[in-house]
Amino acid sequence: MTENAEDPQVVVTDDEIFDAHVAGKLSVGLRSPLDTQRALSIAYTPGVAQVSRAIAADHTLAARYTWANRLVAVVSDGSAVLGLGDIGPAAALPVMEGKCGLFKAYGELDAIPIVLDTKDPDEIVETLVRLRPTFGAVNLEDISAPRCFEIERRLIEALDCPVMHDDQHGTAIVVLAAMLGATKVLDRDIASLRVVIAGVGAAGIACANILLAAGVSDMTLLDSKGILHPRREDLTPIKFEMAQRTNPDGLSGGMVEALKGADVFLGLSGGIVPEELIATMAPNGIVFALSNPDPEIHPDIAARHAAVVATGRSDYLNQINNVLAFPGVFRGALDAGARRITEKMKVAAAEAIFGVVGDDASPEYIVPSPLDPRVRPAVAEAVAAALRADDA
Amino acid sequence: MTENAEDPQVVVTDDEIFDAHVAGKLSVGLRSPLDTQRALSIAYTPGVAQVSRAIAADHTLAARYTWANRLVAVVSDGSAVLGLGDIGPAAALPVMEGKCGLFKAYGELDAIPIVLDTKDPDEIVETLVRLRPTFGAVNLEDISAPRCFEIERRLIEALDCPVMHDDQHGTAIVVLAAMLGATKVLDRDIASLRVVIAGVGAAGIACANILLAAGVSDMTLLDSKGILHPRREDLTPIKFEMAQRTNPDGLSGGMVEALKGADVFLGLSGGIVPEELIATMAPNGIVFALSNPDPEIHPDIAARHAAVVATGRSDYLNQINNVLAFPGVFRGALDAGARRITEKMKVAAAEAIFGVVGDDASPEYIVPSPLDPRVRPAVAEAVAAALRADDA
Repeated sequence: MTENAEDPQVVVTDDEIFDAHVAGKLSVGLRSPLDTQRALSIAYTPGVAQVSRAIAADHTLAARYTWANRLVAVVSDGSAVLGLGDIGPAAALPVMEGKCGLFKAYGELDAIPIVLDTKDPDEIVETLVRLRPTFGAVNLEDISAPRCFEIERRLIEALDCPVMHDDQHGTAIVVLAAMLGATKVLDRDIASLRVVIAGVGAAGIACANILLAAGVSDMTLLDSKGILHPRREDLTPIKFEMAQRTNPDGLSGGMVEALKGADVFLGLSGGIVPEELIATMAPNGIVFALSNPDPEIHPDIAARHAAVVATGRSDYLNQINNVLAFPGVFRGALDAGARRITEKMKVAAAEAIFGVVGDDASPEYIVPSPLDPRVRPAVAEAVAAALRADDA
Repeated sequence: MTENAEDPQVVVTDDEIFDAHVAGKLSVGLRSPLDTQRALSIAYTPGVAQVSRAIAADHTLAARYTWANRLVAVVSDGSAVLGLGDIGPAAALPVMEGKCGLFKAYGELDAIPIVLDTKDPDEIVETLVRLRPTFGAVNLEDISAPRCFEIERRLIEALDCPVMHDDQHGTAIVVLAAMLGATKVLDRDIASLRVVIAGVGAAGIACANILLAAGVSDMTLLDSKGILHPRREDLTPIKFEMAQRTNPDGLSGGMVEALKGADVFLGLSGGIVPEELIATMAPNGIVFALSNPDPEIHPDIAARHAAVVATGRSDYLNQINNVLAFPGVFRGALDAGARRITEKMKVAAAEAIFGVVGDDASPEYIVPSPLDPRVRPAVAEAVAAALRADDA
């Protein structure tokens, strides 16, 4: 049984979960019925030949007369699925179907799951290049670090359409939005915060980058071996680069050394942080314990020591959930005809999510509910406007 | 304007066609709404993790708990689209969307278009092998000969799921069904017919093969250079093989030599056959002039000389249309858990299509209407039964 113990309305049995998945969660529908000879003549032969001929003469017409231009491919190799790890493409498919469902429900965008039976970055890039005319944007999902960085970078170069690894940038956008909310509540300047990030995978790197770009200058990152610093000899190239850009005080050691006097703890690690360490943070601190389903520290315990607390769970206050970001980001990018999702568009998305909260911000309300219908239009408009500002 | 001149109800304007294609013809739907926290907990995190974990432990569960097992990938490289030729994948997409719509409307199967920006058989096979966990069957569409033969053969070897090139086998199944109808009307034995096939592309080869398997022994094939015979030095390997298996009288020359005294003309060429040549056929002949949109000979003119006439057009009697076959063939194969679509399953499909006509057969009614709701269940059941008979 998967229980959200705090909220008896969201108790779901395993039977209920499996029953809801029989035959999958998606279906392909027709935008108009095909049940008459006349409808067939329009949508299939002979009528469709007119449309194909027109696109052959002018490829830009494919954007207008096919679904591809607004179709998001939700792509995974199943190598880092939820907290389950490398469970493979077939087992990843229910998650990708769910993601496609979220694109529809929260972005009014069509999306199809593409699960790949290869983990080779060359082959993944090559496959999506060959599939290019099939879709209009790529949402990479649940691909393990550090491969995800290379795959995303190379796809952005190779494809003339929006590409975003949601585990990185969706998370980073919502974390920045929540940080804007928390600093508003605490009347703090984001640049003045001492930030500790536990977890240097896809999400950790992206959150560090967006917070550095937002002005944070005192940031310490920890992986499972401890604090990142350039003297460590076990770092991957991307972790080494992060070690050079962070940890201004040259700390070494682990969570004890990192958390002492910190203003912000951002947990993306799946680990556990004991109350005693949270207690060593500076007064009026911020704790985002985002591991799912088990936060690094229970929010009620964190709240004894921190002024603002958030988790990734729907059954606690301040849920930091990617669904606040990706539907509006892709919708805005596609509405505006963007070829790239730029850093400015991501920051604009975060500001738009925070904007829905605005002056209503309180310690219990730093981000909107994922179900809030105001979020997607606000994010989509902000993302499209950021592109226009870039182009201008 | 695309007019079906004989039937004023099916006059459609270009504006109407293009308007119906704006934003494409398909959409992805949710089988259950995702608008509550509870629904999110079931279909996405944390509930979905249970399903992913179960599939990771037992891959066969993917068939039950995802849409992939019943999802048809409609795959094209855009190299032989309708009668338009090699117009490329983007311009092929409206046709593939229409095909997916037909799968839904006539087979109650979900289908997604996959258009590939490569025409290399190695790359096409490799791409679909990598995509394998994404779908449950492959309908190849509008891929040019002779590449289509190699691509289909290699995919059948490489993938453990039904694969069928519809331009070949869908056409062949419906042609055999129509031939069963015509021979019933004429009280002829199919094995006694002298058959002429004009056009040795994907459809021509497949029709020749299915009719040879059905007992036809006197068959002559023509390509654009004339009658196929083994002394011709310009033949591709597959045409050379067909030349060896056909033309028992060792004919050479062209349509004049081939049609004289023939019982059946099967046109799949896009060419034109003058009335004077049809007039040289044996009495009580059969003319299937299947080129679209312009039949090799107008059916009213053919009917002056032949006893049974059919075309590919919806506005004349006896429309030979693949939609009679592929929805039921794939539906039956997927219902039965088939890994291959065998020759027996194709013949069973043809017999089932003819079975809907049965004793009602007349010169004006040798095949059911594509809209006849009895066709798909009959074909699906016959295909599934043929698999069970093979397995028994």
